[in-house]
Amino acid sequence: MPLSHTVKVRVRYSETDQGGVVYHANYFLYFESGRTELLRAAGVIYRDLERKGLFLVVTEASCKYRAAARYDDELSIVTRVDQVGKATVGFTYRVLGPEGRLLAEGHTLLASVDADKNPVRLPPEVSELLQKS
Amino acid sequence: MPLSHTVKVRVRYSETDQGGVVYHANYFLYFESGRTELLRAAGVIYRDLERKGLFLVVTEASCKYRAAARYDDELSIVTRVDQVGKATVGFTYRVLGPEGRLLAEGHTLLASVDADKNPVRLPPEVSELLQKS
Amino acid sequence: MPLSHTVKVRVRYSETDQGGVVYHANYFLYFESGRTELLRAAGVIYRDLERKGLFLVVTEASCKYRAAARYDDELSIVTRVDQVGKATVGFTYRVLGPEGRLLAEGHTLLASVDADKNPVRLPPEVSELLQKS
Amino acid sequence: MPLSHTVKVRVRYSETDQGGVVYHANYFLYFESGRTELLRAAGVIYRDLERKGLFLVVTEASCKYRAAARYDDELSIVTRVDQVGKATVGFTYRVLGPEGRLLAEGHTLLASVDADKNPVRLPPEVSELLQKS
Repeated sequence: MPLSHTVKVRVRYSETDQGGVVYHANYFLYFESGRTELLRAAGVIYRDLERKGLFLVVTEASCKYRAAARYDDELSIVTRVDQVGKATVGFTYRVLGPEGRLLAEGHTLLASVDADKNPVRLPPEVSELLQKS
Repeated sequence: MPLSHTVKVRVRYSETDQGGVVYHANYFLYFESGRTELLRAAGVIYRDLERKGLFLVVTEASCKYRAAARYDDELSIVTRVDQVGKATVGFTYRVLGPEGRLLAEGHTLLASVDADKNPVRLPPEVSELLQKS
Repeated sequence: MPLSHTVKVRVRYSETDQGGVVYHANYFLYFESGRTELLRAAGVIYRDLERKGLFLVVTEASCKYRAAARYDDELSIVTRVDQVGKATVGFTYRVLGPEGRLLAEGHTLLASVDADKNPVRLPPEVSELLQKS
Repeated sequence: MPLSHTVKVRVRYSETDQGGVVYHANYFLYFESGRTELLRAAGVIYRDLERKGLFLVVTEASCKYRAAARYDDELSIVTRVDQVGKATVGFTYRVLGPEGRLLAEGHTLLASVDADKNPVRLPPEVSELLQKS
């Protein structure tokens, strides 16, 4: 079982659109909260990585939408690490509605780069995330 | 060759993040502009579809990021229809930078639904888009 | 002393800009969280007001920026009701940084309207907010 | 008469909310487009100012909302410089709907700072904007 972490997110009014549901691109903001808090729970403060000159940049992102999230819903974002390479790390996400219904599933692949956008090895505290599982 | 349409988008300051480039989720906003303007060029005003009670909702979205878009860049969003089903339509997108460099490639699948989110047939003016190619 | 409520907000990466700080317009999203949670604490679920056909729409919004909020900061949004009219309600906001430093001060005026955007009296549970202070 | 500049902005779906209109905070994005294009028309590329180490940061922002902007509307943002100080510049904005109806009026005050957020004199090409009027 890969390392998993759940964070709660309250849907903001600004995140809805005139269709009456959450605008599809905003799920990627929830994914970002999911992986940031997974890292924090594992002892990695992403902000501190950037201060040391290491950036995790998104190179692939995808989402399948199953059912709509709505304003003021408290969503659960369940995040897992699903792959770790020398300079890449992948995360999967499941977005659950207030009653535990699956609303969306997503994936992002991130690359570890320096301030000049050159690939660098993942820091050990990130590459060890899969082993913690 | 499928129908293709190009729209220009100027990157806004609000669309950047502290990494100094466009935040990855914002490419999906550019994709939305791309398909809206492709439809308009084909004679379909999406706003009018909604007024008649037909909604095209995104059910799948993905993007691969090749190089960074930056503030004030004038991007070209090249949109194509790549599949049409009874109640679904797929679009592909290429985001080109000011010198024509490929920055990102994406795809969205949309489903045709009524105001109660029930699937309905695509309007003919949309399902004919592929044939126009 | 007017009714006051404090909510914590974690700054998201998407809310920063290439200046390395929170983009100025995003403070209004924090203000929205502030007043929504003040209302909730007072027993008013704004979502339920909308379901009954009553909308609180922003008619004036302003903010003075004192110091920058940054990525991953946990901000405190201190919200107060500062005026209540027949069909209007005003809120003030103070945004405090992690060490309690004042980062921004804002104000919004909201009008109570029906689904056709016609003014309607504030619901009593909202107009009584000032008296609770 | 102060220098004035008009830019057209097409309302994106992502900019609407479940109230069926443009979310109030997004007008500040239109204001940003307005002042960026006013500066460009006057020969000042804001991106280049930042590359030289000069930043114009928003210190005050306000908006009064008169009528709703809607999805797919082509708005006109009419921007004027209304004050110039040693290290500050103020802009006013009028947002007009497709038929020229006034939808919103806003104001922002910006301060000229260096990369360390210390105040610096406005560059002459900006401080001369009022004289051009």
